[in-house]
Amino acid sequence: MTGNAPSSELLDRFAAIVGDTYAIRDPKAMGAYVTEPRSFYEGASPIVLRPGSTQEVSEILKLASETGTAVVPQSGNTGLVGGQIPRRGKPDVILSLDRMNKVRDIDPVANVLVVDAGVILADVQKAAESVNRLFPLSLGSEGSCRIGGNLATNAGGTAVLAYGNTRNLCLGLEVVLPTGEIWDGLRRLKKDNTGYDLRDLFIGSEGTLGVITGAVLRLFPRPVGHQVAFAGVNSPEDALALFDLATGLCHTALTGFELMSRMSVDFAVRHIEGVRDPLPDGEYPWYVLIDISTADSEESAEALMTTVLEQGFEQGFVVDAVIASSVAQQTALWHMRETVSEAQKPEGGSIKHDVSVPVSRIPAFLAEADAVVKKTIPGARICAFGHMGDGNIHYNVSQPVGADKKAFLDRWHELNHAVHAVVLSYNGSISAEHGIGQIKRDELAEVRGEGIELKLMHRIKAAFDPAGIMNPDKVLKVR
Amino acid sequence: MTGNAPSSELLDRFAAIVGDTYAIRDPKAMGAYVTEPRSFYEGASPIVLRPGSTQEVSEILKLASETGTAVVPQSGNTGLVGGQIPRRGKPDVILSLDRMNKVRDIDPVANVLVVDAGVILADVQKAAESVNRLFPLSLGSEGSCRIGGNLATNAGGTAVLAYGNTRNLCLGLEVVLPTGEIWDGLRRLKKDNTGYDLRDLFIGSEGTLGVITGAVLRLFPRPVGHQVAFAGVNSPEDALALFDLATGLCHTALTGFELMSRMSVDFAVRHIEGVRDPLPDGEYPWYVLIDISTADSEESAEALMTTVLEQGFEQGFVVDAVIASSVAQQTALWHMRETVSEAQKPEGGSIKHDVSVPVSRIPAFLAEADAVVKKTIPGARICAFGHMGDGNIHYNVSQPVGADKKAFLDRWHELNHAVHAVVLSYNGSISAEHGIGQIKRDELAEVRGEGIELKLMHRIKAAFDPAGIMNPDKVLKVR
Repeated sequence: MTGNAPSSELLDRFAAIVGDTYAIRDPKAMGAYVTEPRSFYEGASPIVLRPGSTQEVSEILKLASETGTAVVPQSGNTGLVGGQIPRRGKPDVILSLDRMNKVRDIDPVANVLVVDAGVILADVQKAAESVNRLFPLSLGSEGSCRIGGNLATNAGGTAVLAYGNTRNLCLGLEVVLPTGEIWDGLRRLKKDNTGYDLRDLFIGSEGTLGVITGAVLRLFPRPVGHQVAFAGVNSPEDALALFDLATGLCHTALTGFELMSRMSVDFAVRHIEGVRDPLPDGEYPWYVLIDISTADSEESAEALMTTVLEQGFEQGFVVDAVIASSVAQQTALWHMRETVSEAQKPEGGSIKHDVSVPVSRIPAFLAEADAVVKKTIPGARICAFGHMGDGNIHYNVSQPVGADKKAFLDRWHELNHAVHAVVLSYNGSISAEHGIGQIKRDELAEVRGEGIELKLMHRIKAAFDPAGIMNPDKVLKVR
Repeated sequence: MTGNAPSSELLDRFAAIVGDTYAIRDPKAMGAYVTEPRSFYEGASPIVLRPGSTQEVSEILKLASETGTAVVPQSGNTGLVGGQIPRRGKPDVILSLDRMNKVRDIDPVANVLVVDAGVILADVQKAAESVNRLFPLSLGSEGSCRIGGNLATNAGGTAVLAYGNTRNLCLGLEVVLPTGEIWDGLRRLKKDNTGYDLRDLFIGSEGTLGVITGAVLRLFPRPVGHQVAFAGVNSPEDALALFDLATGLCHTALTGFELMSRMSVDFAVRHIEGVRDPLPDGEYPWYVLIDISTADSEESAEALMTTVLEQGFEQGFVVDAVIASSVAQQTALWHMRETVSEAQKPEGGSIKHDVSVPVSRIPAFLAEADAVVKKTIPGARICAFGHMGDGNIHYNVSQPVGADKKAFLDRWHELNHAVHAVVLSYNGSISAEHGIGQIKRDELAEVRGEGIELKLMHRIKAAFDPAGIMNPDKVLKVR
């Protein structure tokens, strides 16, 4: 059933649930819902539904299950793997959470915040701030991504080192099952051993098992001291040694440790307005951004950062370094790091890899992957950067200077395949934080092979979504 | 099939997998495997199998699936809810992991430790210590419980406040499915968004979905400074205010915040050899144990503890307090806290509740629950203590002085029911850290009612264990 276009009469029934104002049927009016950041996937949809309540979501899914209508849940539409976009040539209905954007409750003593799934991440952060608390999830798209999507994809970002992935920031969920049944799992408990962990099953399932409509989020005390430094190092080995040193000195006060290759810095300086080389007196093959946050005072953060860099110099891991001397400078350093991906665009096509390996294997991985890229596409420019402290490298490859962009991008899967083989040889992940969606679905199946893991995932999918209406062909290919 | 006793020929086939030396068929020799700490459940088993490898576990489960033989996985046999004990009157085969006790690998730079499931928790801690790292999971039975059981039950303990439950300390698992298929999920990655979270589904499933045979555990830097204090407070409200104050001052350096009623302290002083009242100059209705650990120095931990107590006095939350002045005194304070349960035994029967509520609701919960207990069993003595920082109270009730022990214990379920009703009114959990096992299975079903949650759990069970051989009737009643 999920292959046939819904009849006009069925679309009327869907529209009646949310009201005509919130049911978009004019293709010209649904642009923002059917395209995505990288423009790889341009879906079409017979209707975009914008429910205003959990009850309306429930009614939509109940009708979808009864009529075999495929539904794609969508929140901020910032995903990079095509998970939130209708399949090509399939009449998938889009269910947008963008009207469900209320903060439901906040309890600073219990350190919990209860929100609708459609609240924009930056607004979640602000709600926490309003009661002098921190919600640590932070990523480039935080001004437009929504918390439901962050949960559905188990988003990563820059604060994972100290606070964990989105999974670790969630205590409870409200989920509408494909049948329309509502699971009220909005628990505010740090400890609850009463059966199977449904919460973590929904988190990261990319909307294929149900629609997250609400969540209980964890809040944290706001740090008092904050320091950011930028250091030039000679090699990934030295960056790793510096990371080990910093971890030993700072423990949980080490709130960020990012790696950038010289080319990443070059691109950002060249193409992003206002970005300047923080260490203009020299060029170093690799750089690290160090972020330290302390509970008590600015002085303790300063003292820690100074110790890390001093010992780093003494032990020969650091060649040059600068500590940001103002909040503006701190912001500028992070801005440079966060704009690397954007800075690649003027350099032509870029083939992306969002991979992770055990932290201790990053130097070996980088060396091997570089050899593979150079052999596969001579002249390609490796723009590696990422969350080193989490073992997560955005191993991006820009086209050779002067090459044909389309011809280069046509080799996306070939290069992915070659780089991922290196990742897998280190028992790494082919999707560290972006998820599977459409773009990596077939590769996931290939990587998992005949093992039990994919079989178990298919069985879970069948157990939760027997009608197969819930974001079909994402993560798993419908069988 | 899971109700009929295995034939002698079938038992021979099971024994042949592990070898006769490791197949116990003499009931007199299997005592330690069929009884449990509280002596509520005394199972019997036709055979105890002690495999020495993942491969042998796989062969056992394959044969069990083919022959419909129920299997109970067991690790340290310290569980408190009957999950690791055969059902009464059912010929369940016991599969003990106690021979699989090797540390497989350790990588201090990546901060990971790979172990067999049968390694004793204290040995896991020691392995971490041997490379100057911390494995923070810590609980009363750490000298005999095994990590596989800790994972299968998502164990809590005293370090949850800073480090989370066992779930948060695990990166990857190796699991043998009921069919005998082996899932190699031994990933060492902090970030891996490649499909459904099977790891967290197995963690806390109490051996009903498969047998955990290996795990990748997270390691942490060892703290340098450590301080323990004991404070008398006037009420749970003041304890909560002090917790909020301490959290704000210490953030992640607050590594323990335990609550004890006067009666808990009384019992420990009265019955546990060597335990003395740490604040002998007065009696206070409630006490808190505060544990602070810092990354850098003993001085910073001292300074933090002093600030917490000074501000606690100033704001009127603390009436009296003592800071342990030696490691021996620190150990003595924790020992007192950890022996409360033991100290109740000489006072007669004790009806236990392992519950959690949102931290901010603990005072209200305690007040209401007390009223309920006093009304239900006049004269019963409430011995409440627990992990206040996690919202987890061990709400134990000792029999009235001079009452009949058996008559008192016969009211276990009645009292549980009454206290749990209060817990549920605060959206709390009827099993914060001990799990469901046999003892709370029917109550879980009652509490969840006709909602979707239990249905989803049954569907997951059927998807993973279609033959129904895997620890049947634990957590969920076989349908």
